[in-house]
Amino acid sequence: MRRRDQDMALRARAAQVIPNGMYGHEATHWLPETYPQFFSRAKGAHLWDADGNRYIDYLAGYGPSLFGYGYPGIDEAVLAQLAKGDTMTGPSEIMVELAELFTSMVSHADWAMFCKNGTDATSMAMVISRAHRGKRKLLCAKGAYHGAAPWATPFPAGTLPEDRAHIVYYEYNDAESLEAAAAAHKGDIAGIFATPFRHEAFADQHLPDLTYAQTARAIANSEEALLIVDDVRAGLRLARDCSWSTIGVQPDLSCWGKAIGNGYPISALLGADIAREVASKVFVTGSFWFSAAPMAAAIATLTLVKKTDYLEHCLAMGEKLRTGLDQQARQYGFELRQTGPAQMPQILFADDPDFRIGYGWASLCIERGVYFSPYHNMFLTAAHTVHDIDKTLAVTAEAFSELTKVADSLGPVAQLKRLNL
Amino acid sequence: MRRRDQDMALRARAAQVIPNGMYGHEATHWLPETYPQFFSRAKGAHLWDADGNRYIDYLAGYGPSLFGYGYPGIDEAVLAQLAKGDTMTGPSEIMVELAELFTSMVSHADWAMFCKNGTDATSMAMVISRAHRGKRKLLCAKGAYHGAAPWATPFPAGTLPEDRAHIVYYEYNDAESLEAAAAAHKGDIAGIFATPFRHEAFADQHLPDLTYAQTARAIANSEEALLIVDDVRAGLRLARDCSWSTIGVQPDLSCWGKAIGNGYPISALLGADIAREVASKVFVTGSFWFSAAPMAAAIATLTLVKKTDYLEHCLAMGEKLRTGLDQQARQYGFELRQTGPAQMPQILFADDPDFRIGYGWASLCIERGVYFSPYHNMFLTAAHTVHDIDKTLAVTAEAFSELTKVADSLGPVAQLKRLNL
Repeated sequence: MRRRDQDMALRARAAQVIPNGMYGHEATHWLPETYPQFFSRAKGAHLWDADGNRYIDYLAGYGPSLFGYGYPGIDEAVLAQLAKGDTMTGPSEIMVELAELFTSMVSHADWAMFCKNGTDATSMAMVISRAHRGKRKLLCAKGAYHGAAPWATPFPAGTLPEDRAHIVYYEYNDAESLEAAAAAHKGDIAGIFATPFRHEAFADQHLPDLTYAQTARAIANSEEALLIVDDVRAGLRLARDCSWSTIGVQPDLSCWGKAIGNGYPISALLGADIAREVASKVFVTGSFWFSAAPMAAAIATLTLVKKTDYLEHCLAMGEKLRTGLDQQARQYGFELRQTGPAQMPQILFADDPDFRIGYGWASLCIERGVYFSPYHNMFLTAAHTVHDIDKTLAVTAEAFSELTKVADSLGPVAQLKRLNL
Repeated sequence: MRRRDQDMALRARAAQVIPNGMYGHEATHWLPETYPQFFSRAKGAHLWDADGNRYIDYLAGYGPSLFGYGYPGIDEAVLAQLAKGDTMTGPSEIMVELAELFTSMVSHADWAMFCKNGTDATSMAMVISRAHRGKRKLLCAKGAYHGAAPWATPFPAGTLPEDRAHIVYYEYNDAESLEAAAAAHKGDIAGIFATPFRHEAFADQHLPDLTYAQTARAIANSEEALLIVDDVRAGLRLARDCSWSTIGVQPDLSCWGKAIGNGYPISALLGADIAREVASKVFVTGSFWFSAAPMAAAIATLTLVKKTDYLEHCLAMGEKLRTGLDQQARQYGFELRQTGPAQMPQILFADDPDFRIGYGWASLCIERGVYFSPYHNMFLTAAHTVHDIDKTLAVTAEAFSELTKVADSLGPVAQLKRLNL
């Protein structure tokens, strides 16, 4: 058994000074109980918890790590910028360089604004869409995550009906549903939000349907609304461009975050000329939005995106993992539901409605040094090597083997009851 | 004349790829036209613009620089943490250490949550207040800045009436106005927001009236609402505790940001036990909220706050500057309105309703290497030396002298017309 006493001691201390011991998406409340909460080190594709246990990590910080933790070329750019200046009374000159580089890579983008949270970018898109033609309604897919602000958070505690009075929900990938939502609010549609693919937690992932995406574009055109691709989670993992460039649909705005600075705190809203004037009229800002070091990280990251085969590598590693897992599952009598792009895999079990099998398997993997999520899509990075995948598959084979012995004795996942899945 | 060609070239490039060339509080649109927009370097109390011109800086990044730009002891802590890990799949163990340290320093605080923007902290306070007893109204002082989210932004483009349907405005420092606002919404009051002092742009600053603050506390108690001190801008500059500790009034929640990591991107919401359970029920998060390097910066910063005389030094330097400026102004026939704490000075001119004299004087100062704001409160840092203040006063004496020659020829400030001050 892994040592867990440091993690346990830290949890006890955290319970005193942090509500519920932890909050947000990195809290382990929804993970199997044996998952570590606190980490002491990260390098490449590997994580070490507070007890020194090492893991091959498939969460990548929930997306930010694209080239691997502590990637030298990016860290060096950050350290060089820190030596010059970071958060100053005005932006660094490199902000212009970053805006030029990013807009040169993203087909639909003529301009860029930088911020800190993914939620900053989606909320800016909301405000800009409403200012564009003075319309109010935002069409969002049911269940899609666009951030934790009151208008978007999946958990409504503390929010008011007014916060989402003009959010209209449609079914992702369902052009008819989107058309019906638009028809119901014709003349008052400010924007249409879409994640590049359907990547909800606790659910299979779905690649975008072309008719749906084209319908979204057509409605935006006819309604003079703005089409917004929320690429915060998937950005740079499907394309060296906006993710919907892969299906030939160009949004007016795209939201970015997570990976664009390889873990350094920066997010962005990119926009087309049609939204340039209105973007200059909204007031949005934050204390650290103009900090230069994360911009240096983003320049270094985007340069690697342009110049390396990271994307093809992530895809190849994801496919190697997916193929190996499918083979093992069949061998041990399980059926996996592996969905989403191979480089952003969601791994669920068939015939596992309350996730007990998936949680059991993930528990066996974490114990053996592989950090999988049993409910959230994962992320391959440029740092995952063939050797990492082989080691992972050795662990998962053991886990499947053990799972055959314990599967019948697994009970419901206690911590998921309150989610009402 | 300073060289400005690099800044001008950068502005021209920025105009192509950033809406309006720049956005937010670090855009120079409201400053005199000769202010630089882009900076290449910052160290201590000094800034260098993109053309290499050096300034003694009194904006401190609009607050984040507390010990000076690039403070070695803080940067070293950050670099050491970066070598271990920054944005990982879970928080670092130092998050617990930071929460323990910060809550040990802030009298009212039993718990801490960390985030990125000041707006994150104020928006979390809003959501927690509403979740606390299921009430809706938030009492905010007219003109107070609590962030750039739709419920708070001073510029309403793109926001809807619903965004602030339950925001109720009162007059800062006016207990009767606060009582009237509370009486009008009795039984539905979720929270009362207060900045620690009145620090609005384009206006004199006002220290808090004790009766007002005590009234806010009493209303929160009787209404079971939460009292929130928004210490994002002033935090750690008035006290080594919540700013209202100086007047003996303890809030339930306090919002922090700006200086707590000396410029590294971190903000925080601190709370008392009364709000602990409800804080554990709201869902708030962000991609980089658990990143360890800014937490290392905050630990180093708070440790310096505890162990050094930075606060007394900032006050002394602020008073030296204030006294010197008052003497010079009188000598040259001007009257200054110097308000706010000396370490967060607001410097306006008497009989200058449209700010033309203040803008003229600031223009003469920037030309000579002193970066003042003619409309926003400023910030002394631990890095401002007696020598810096003396050099500044030599510049300001020259500026006053020049001002006597040009004051009568100054026209209205063109870029302020649209603000309708």
